[in-house]
Amino acid sequence: MNPFVETVRSYRQGASTLPGQYYTSPEIFAQECERIFRRHWLCVGREAQIVTPGAYFVASVAGESVIVLRDEQHVARAFYNICRHRGTRLCEEQSGELSRSIQCPYHAWTYTLDGRLLGAPHMEGVEDFEKREYSLHRVPLEIWEGFLFLNLSPQPRSLAEAFTPLADRFRRFRLPRLRPSRRIGYVVEANWKLLFQNYSECLHCPVIHPGLARRSPWRSGENDLAEGPFLGGFMLLDGDSESLTVSGRACGPVVGELPHEDLRRVYYYSIFPNLLVSLHPDYVMFHMLQPESATRTRVECEWLFHPDALHDPQYDPEDAVSFWDATNREDWHICELSQKGISSRMYAPGPYSPRESLPAAWDREYARQLGQHAEDVG
Amino acid sequence: MNPFVETVRSYRQGASTLPGQYYTSPEIFAQECERIFRRHWLCVGREAQIVTPGAYFVASVAGESVIVLRDEQHVARAFYNICRHRGTRLCEEQSGELSRSIQCPYHAWTYTLDGRLLGAPHMEGVEDFEKREYSLHRVPLEIWEGFLFLNLSPQPRSLAEAFTPLADRFRRFRLPRLRPSRRIGYVVEANWKLLFQNYSECLHCPVIHPGLARRSPWRSGENDLAEGPFLGGFMLLDGDSESLTVSGRACGPVVGELPHEDLRRVYYYSIFPNLLVSLHPDYVMFHMLQPESATRTRVECEWLFHPDALHDPQYDPEDAVSFWDATNREDWHICELSQKGISSRMYAPGPYSPRESLPAAWDREYARQLGQHAEDVG
Amino acid sequence: MNPFVETVRSYRQGASTLPGQYYTSPEIFAQECERIFRRHWLCVGREAQIVTPGAYFVASVAGESVIVLRDEQHVARAFYNICRHRGTRLCEEQSGELSRSIQCPYHAWTYTLDGRLLGAPHMEGVEDFEKREYSLHRVPLEIWEGFLFLNLSPQPRSLAEAFTPLADRFRRFRLPRLRPSRRIGYVVEANWKLLFQNYSECLHCPVIHPGLARRSPWRSGENDLAEGPFLGGFMLLDGDSESLTVSGRACGPVVGELPHEDLRRVYYYSIFPNLLVSLHPDYVMFHMLQPESATRTRVECEWLFHPDALHDPQYDPEDAVSFWDATNREDWHICELSQKGISSRMYAPGPYSPRESLPAAWDREYARQLGQHAEDVG
Repeated sequence: MNPFVETVRSYRQGASTLPGQYYTSPEIFAQECERIFRRHWLCVGREAQIVTPGAYFVASVAGESVIVLRDEQHVARAFYNICRHRGTRLCEEQSGELSRSIQCPYHAWTYTLDGRLLGAPHMEGVEDFEKREYSLHRVPLEIWEGFLFLNLSPQPRSLAEAFTPLADRFRRFRLPRLRPSRRIGYVVEANWKLLFQNYSECLHCPVIHPGLARRSPWRSGENDLAEGPFLGGFMLLDGDSESLTVSGRACGPVVGELPHEDLRRVYYYSIFPNLLVSLHPDYVMFHMLQPESATRTRVECEWLFHPDALHDPQYDPEDAVSFWDATNREDWHICELSQKGISSRMYAPGPYSPRESLPAAWDREYARQLGQHAEDVG
Repeated sequence: MNPFVETVRSYRQGASTLPGQYYTSPEIFAQECERIFRRHWLCVGREAQIVTPGAYFVASVAGESVIVLRDEQHVARAFYNICRHRGTRLCEEQSGELSRSIQCPYHAWTYTLDGRLLGAPHMEGVEDFEKREYSLHRVPLEIWEGFLFLNLSPQPRSLAEAFTPLADRFRRFRLPRLRPSRRIGYVVEANWKLLFQNYSECLHCPVIHPGLARRSPWRSGENDLAEGPFLGGFMLLDGDSESLTVSGRACGPVVGELPHEDLRRVYYYSIFPNLLVSLHPDYVMFHMLQPESATRTRVECEWLFHPDALHDPQYDPEDAVSFWDATNREDWHICELSQKGISSRMYAPGPYSPRESLPAAWDREYARQLGQHAEDVG
Repeated sequence: MNPFVETVRSYRQGASTLPGQYYTSPEIFAQECERIFRRHWLCVGREAQIVTPGAYFVASVAGESVIVLRDEQHVARAFYNICRHRGTRLCEEQSGELSRSIQCPYHAWTYTLDGRLLGAPHMEGVEDFEKREYSLHRVPLEIWEGFLFLNLSPQPRSLAEAFTPLADRFRRFRLPRLRPSRRIGYVVEANWKLLFQNYSECLHCPVIHPGLARRSPWRSGENDLAEGPFLGGFMLLDGDSESLTVSGRACGPVVGELPHEDLRRVYYYSIFPNLLVSLHPDYVMFHMLQPESATRTRVECEWLFHPDALHDPQYDPEDAVSFWDATNREDWHICELSQKGISSRMYAPGPYSPRESLPAAWDREYARQLGQHAEDVG
């Protein structure tokens, strides 16, 4: 969705798409899991999902099941969803409310909400058994703009440091206080990188998205982040449109303290490697990507509104949800067609145009993160 | 279906079935794709499917999607179904009518029907970009007896040369002018070679096909091609039967200019590696095989009739279709039982009888084509 | 189900669960097939399934399909389910009655019920072809306590020798004469070893099985086999319970000649590597396990009663079937949760308590059978 005048400047002559194996090879997917998804901060949801002590949900990240919860001291925490006794999965439901402890459903080992082993039946007779050595395995968790991020690396660098380029960039939208309205899950039969590339240009908008192209001229706008793990900028709303909605009208109160010019803009940012944030005057939409294999990606898409939207006469979240759900499906479909074509032996990297400077930049960042020379992959 | 007096003569003592791994090993299947399906001419359909300029269908061959079309100069052509820009599949429907060009559904790169790149939006600013270097990837295509054949080898030997043993053999049936009546698709959970072997003998007919055995004595007839990539001959119709139909009556006008003796015969030929042609006095049936894995084969079966059959009072294509659809299903079922048995560790090559000289000859040709000594595989 | 005072004595300090790869690795599963399932005697059913000559059923063991039948001399026999001609599976139905021979459905090769090739159409012209060289491949079969056991090793040691520790142990239950009432099949998405470990302790009973815990105090009883391929002992029935049934009442006549104390006991034995036998005063239940992959196990569970039960007024097999079917499902579910948790990278062997001495012993035996030092796997 980022097709900007600005991008032409950042275009590098000779940029081309990635070789086919990057979209199909299980071996490269395993490398990505190792070098990218097990090292980076990954968005798994919103703080609003775990408001009260005991509230939890289960996140699936890089093949791991992780319990994300609010403990009794109101601290958000994350633990691998496995008992230290015989490895049983502790939480089976996708979300819920825990009482003051987590009890294994097999032999009743019991843990506090901050992960300490409380009870282990019949282990008293075991020599050298120390409860304190059998706490739940913690997963580093940090919060940024109301989003919950996990990191499967045992000693990750801090999120604040990693996210420096984004510091304060969205403050005026007051993201932490926004409230969720709807969440929709999708399964896309395409490599996760195709979804990022698709998000990063609007050259396809007039072809694929007549509804979007009508409300937002596809060549309008400007990029402000054109290299690195965070990429994006804004596009303008068409003169008659207050937001990206089916009706063209705003469907809720302005989300934050926005300057006048922001009321005519939609901002799009990709946050390597699994989050897309799209900020409209009246709502914020985000996509969380969860790669399942080289050729399949799960996507969760959620729409956030002003905390008081419910009491606003113009509040009509479905106006935004319907607009983007249709657009999402158009994108997933073309990504699936790309996946099929790229799987051919005859596919070879093709040339990016200046209107595709952000996908090219994204590919370069990807190559860096995978630990490979950008020249080798693009 | 080829069980002939003649075969006894061509029988080689000691012939036995192929070792089990040839029916189950993914590695051998990959070798077959490389050495057989990517080198040979493969039947993908009939010229009648692309009569007018712009008519196209999509063929799946050896894991590749190929667009087969009639161009504006009325030339039949074939192209890999991928855009040269970002690899997107161009044609999504299985068949249809193109306007005067092929447009990519993603970013609207546009090609002529003979494969040249006409338009590539926003590529004008790209240095060294030459449209003529981004034509669609062509696939060699030739026509034989009204059948369309593709070859995934970039420099294949000519079909005419490859098909020399069949030259003029079917002329009297006037195959190019025949019109399709019905097509039925099957998925068989068996290795593709089991289907060829099954087609190549009628020793199983009295056991499996009581309907067929009643209309055509299983030991009647004679082979005329008993070694090499093309194998077959004829069987006689029973005295009371005019054709292989449920009713026993002819179900259409005689397809070509047939001598009297051909009115009592059904001819069966296997054309290595993916076509079976069965010529009856009043219709021609063919099977196209498309191996999907070592253990699964797709089959398309079509029935062709005299171009004027529609106006013939005795025209009743279902009489033939029902007969062979039932017979096909009997064959696929026994092939599936063979696949299951051969998958056992205890399976070992068993002896072919003189009545199975053609399957044995087919196995020898297969071994040659795979580049292995026949002794090693049989 | 074996949680006994006795086990505490046999507990070895430091025992811990197996490393994760033993539950997930296809390579280790292949080793298990080779070293365990293709070497051991495997239970495939009961003699009562093949009472009369010609009666047969098809067993699936370690990826092989085996015909188990009663021949004309009333001898129970087993053969690989493949024709020696072209490898076709001979018997397609799961069970049935053969006439006096087995005929291949493809080309009608015919075998006697003791496996000799009787007829092979058109093979008379084949030099050096001797029918006696093409008998069906036999599978060693032995009978123990009315159970049919196969062995895929061509020269197995005798079952009697292998089963020495069990000799006469169950005689008083008169197992050979018992009659089947119901059989239920289950598919469990868990490694087969998890099912054995689950069966081998009742520490989980109060958590998982409230119905069972009510009828049989989970810490009651005593083990009599605490090391080796056969493990088990008994648990006591609660004072108000005559058997493990929904009603708590006995649901059939006493199965054998049981001493008074046995009327208050349920005996549980695991028989490496695929049988579990649970002996109640009024019925015997057994589970046959058939591993399909590292992560999936098929289970057949059958309930056996006194041969005269049908004429007994208190005969109500569903009272037992319902009780255990519910308990089975509780166990399969927790095994599936264990499988999921153990698949995590963070799973590591955890400590067994003294109440889990039998699972620990089972793991040791498993390690021995796999040919590995117990220390390496536990």
